[in-house]
This record gives sequence, structure tokens and C-alpha cells, in this order.
Amino acid sequence: MMKDKIQIIGFDADDTLWVNEPFYRETENQFCSIMAPYFPENEANNELFRTEMQNLEMYGYGAKGFMLSMIETALRISVNKITPQEINQIISLGKNLLNQPIILLEGVETVLQKLHPQYTLILATKGDLLDQERKLKKSGLINYFHHIEIMSDKHEINYRKLINRLDIEPQDFVMIGNSIKSDILPVINIGASAIHVPYHTTWQHENDHDETDNSKFVTVDKLVEILNIL
Amino acid sequence: MMKDKIQIIGFDADDTLWVNEPFYRETENQFCSIMAPYFPENEANNELFRTEMQNLEMYGYGAKGFMLSMIETALRISVNKITPQEINQIISLGKNLLNQPIILLEGVETVLQKLHPQYTLILATKGDLLDQERKLKKSGLINYFHHIEIMSDKHEINYRKLINRLDIEPQDFVMIGNSIKSDILPVINIGASAIHVPYHTTWQHENDHDETDNSKFVTVDKLVEILNIL
Repeated sequence: MMKDKIQIIGFDADDTLWVNEPFYRETENQFCSIMAPYFPENEANNELFRTEMQNLEMYGYGAKGFMLSMIETALRISVNKITPQEINQIISLGKNLLNQPIILLEGVETVLQKLHPQYTLILATKGDLLDQERKLKKSGLINYFHHIEIMSDKHEINYRKLINRLDIEPQDFVMIGNSIKSDILPVINIGASAIHVPYHTTWQHENDHDETDNSKFVTVDKLVEILNIL
Repeated sequence: MMKDKIQIIGFDADDTLWVNEPFYRETENQFCSIMAPYFPENEANNELFRTEMQNLEMYGYGAKGFMLSMIETALRISVNKITPQEINQIISLGKNLLNQPIILLEGVETVLQKLHPQYTLILATKGDLLDQERKLKKSGLINYFHHIEIMSDKHEINYRKLINRLDIEPQDFVMIGNSIKSDILPVINIGASAIHVPYHTTWQHENDHDETDNSKFVTVDKLVEILNIL
């Protein structure tokens, strides 16, 4: 069903191979609890999102930028009333996030085992290299992957650079991921293929994308179904 | 003088192509000033270094981890007496560091202009991808480089992975950089070549390395001298 030429398969990592966003959601909830004495509960996370978006160009993606944005938001929305002890609690929340356990999603190991002998598999992520290396090591999946490609963002230009660096043509590449905005649209726009594997929890920022023409890419319910396509 | 086979030249970025460490030193001085009401001046930076080393495995290198370590140190050495306003000042110090101007070191443009037609030039750095992309863009040097290689650390294993990813042999690669620990020793240990271009200011962490056998690599006083070797 997919073009025969495919040589390299790019896998998104967070929420495609393993659970990630739910840990961020849980951290945001704990952040809201810490902020409850200063700010209406369950609204602090909106302010946090605002700060994250303001800092995105400067910090990029990943847990460290998220930690800095939590601290900055706490100072702002408490109008500098937050205590040093509470800032310490926020730092601990962030460190816990960096040490999150790796919970593989359904079918991941089966899929990688089947694809590994026939394709070069890479992890293509916009997280932080050290953090993603740590997660990959903990996941037990490291031997399936040729290497990790860190992208500062997942725009068309970044996928073009990736394809150049891999020394292949767009038709040789398929991307598998849970985010239509980051893993699917920019990839099909440059002439490569993409398979969408939705995850139940998506970061607000990833939902901000153009309308999609679903005839241009395949969506599967479960990761294991990609084996019927590839 | 250097092996004829060289195909790819890896350049370290910070303090090899442009000024970096002096901006960190200046930031540390400002951090010490903010901490002066709580801690003997000019000693807060030792505590900061301790925190950085404790967090290195978790945060890796780069400005965001440095910012988080400054905040954590401030909380610790002020025994939670630091004010929210002062934490805001620390965050601003870090943001200024991320927006540092790019000041090219002597001879950089000449060297890249001469080498660019004959070799594939890459930037090999353990900083943060987004931060290094931003600096490279600001530097005006972007067209000389094939791409940026982000390494989570500059150990032998990371250089081995780099060489595999580039699909070359160690003998095809030479690394140019200011840090004996990060740019020179691990590179010659895996059978590739390295040229050391010292810089006047070096981060304490980079001075912590084994004794060096200077017969195994070349040291030049000025970057432009590498043209006599390559």
C-alpha cells in the first residue's frame, strides 16, 4: 500500500512509543495545586501555557524549558508572593518529570521487531537529546534504532534538512507519529509519507494546525496496524 | 601534514568560532552580586559550579540547565531567604545569556571560506540544538556548514556514533576545538585527528581531564594556522 521505496522509518518518541503527555498533565495539576493559595485553581495551567508560548522561540521544546516557564509563571501570577519553598517544590516537579518511568505503548516492541530487519529505524524528536537518549535507554528499545535525530522544531524545513542529512529522497522516508501538526502535515507537504497513530492526550500546542486533508495520509487505531501498510 | 584522507571537518562552536565562556563568566559575576546579601561574594560561583555538576547527568549542557542550577543554588545558599524579585533577576540573566551577541573569533571567516570548497564542514557541539542554530544564524556563517551535530556529551562513544552516522571512517575526520577534554582527547583516542586552538577562558569542568600526550595532536596559536596543516 505504501510506496515500495521506503528505506528509513522515522518514529516520533513521546506518546508514539511511550507515555509522555499524561506525565506533563499530572505535573500541571500539581503546579496548579502549588499555586492554589495565589490563583484560582485549574486556571494556573492556562497562564503556564501562555508563558510557554512566549518562551518557545527562546527555549524550544523539552522539560527544562517547561521547568523555567513554571517558575516564571509562578512568580508572575503570585505577584511575587510565591515562597522560595514553593519554588523548590516546582523544581522537584520538573526533576520528577525528567525521571519519569518509561511505559511502552501497546504493540511497540512487536512493530519494531518486525520492521528492524528491513528498514533503518530512527527516532525523530524535538525534545532534548540527553532526555531522549535517557528515555530510549530506559525503554529497552535502543537496539532497534540506528540513531536519534534531534530537530529544533518539526516544520517542513526541519524535515527537509533531516532528509538531506540522511542522504535520501523524500519518497524513501515515512514518519510515524501521534501529532498531525508535527509528525504528519509537514512530512506529507515535502513529498514523504506519514502514518498517524493518534494518542488520547495531546498537548494544546499540537492541536493548533491547518485543516487536514485526510486523503493524503493514513490513520491507524493501533500502532501494530502499520505492519499492514509497510 | 595531516592525513590526505580527511573529508569532514568538525568545528566546535563556543569559544572556537565565537565568544561564549566570557558571557558565562560575566553572568556568574552578576549572580554573585545578586547573592551578595546572603553569601560571601565571589564564593557563590563555587556553589553554583557544585550544583551544575550535581545536575549535569540530569540536565546536560547548555544555558537552560545553567539557569535552573542558578535558581536552585540561590534557594540553597540563601537558605530560602532569596526574594521572588531576585529569582526574576536570575531568570533575566539567563535570558540575556540566550540572547548573547555573536562575536566571531579572529580568522574564522577566512578559514571557513578556504576550507568550504574542499571539505564538508559540520558544527559539532554539546549545547542545545535550538540555541546553537540561533547562534549559527546570527553568526552569518550558516552557509559554510553542512549541518549541526548535537552530541549529548563529547565522549569517545559520542564521537564513534557521530562517525557512524556520517558514514565515514575515523581517519576521514578531523576535529577543531578549544577544549582538550571535549574536542581533542576523545577524538584522537578513536583514531581520528584533532587540532587544538586554545582560548583564553575555559570552563572549570573542561579542565578536568587526563594528562595529555601532546605528540598526538597539533596545537596552533591562531585558528588561521590550521590552513597550513589541512
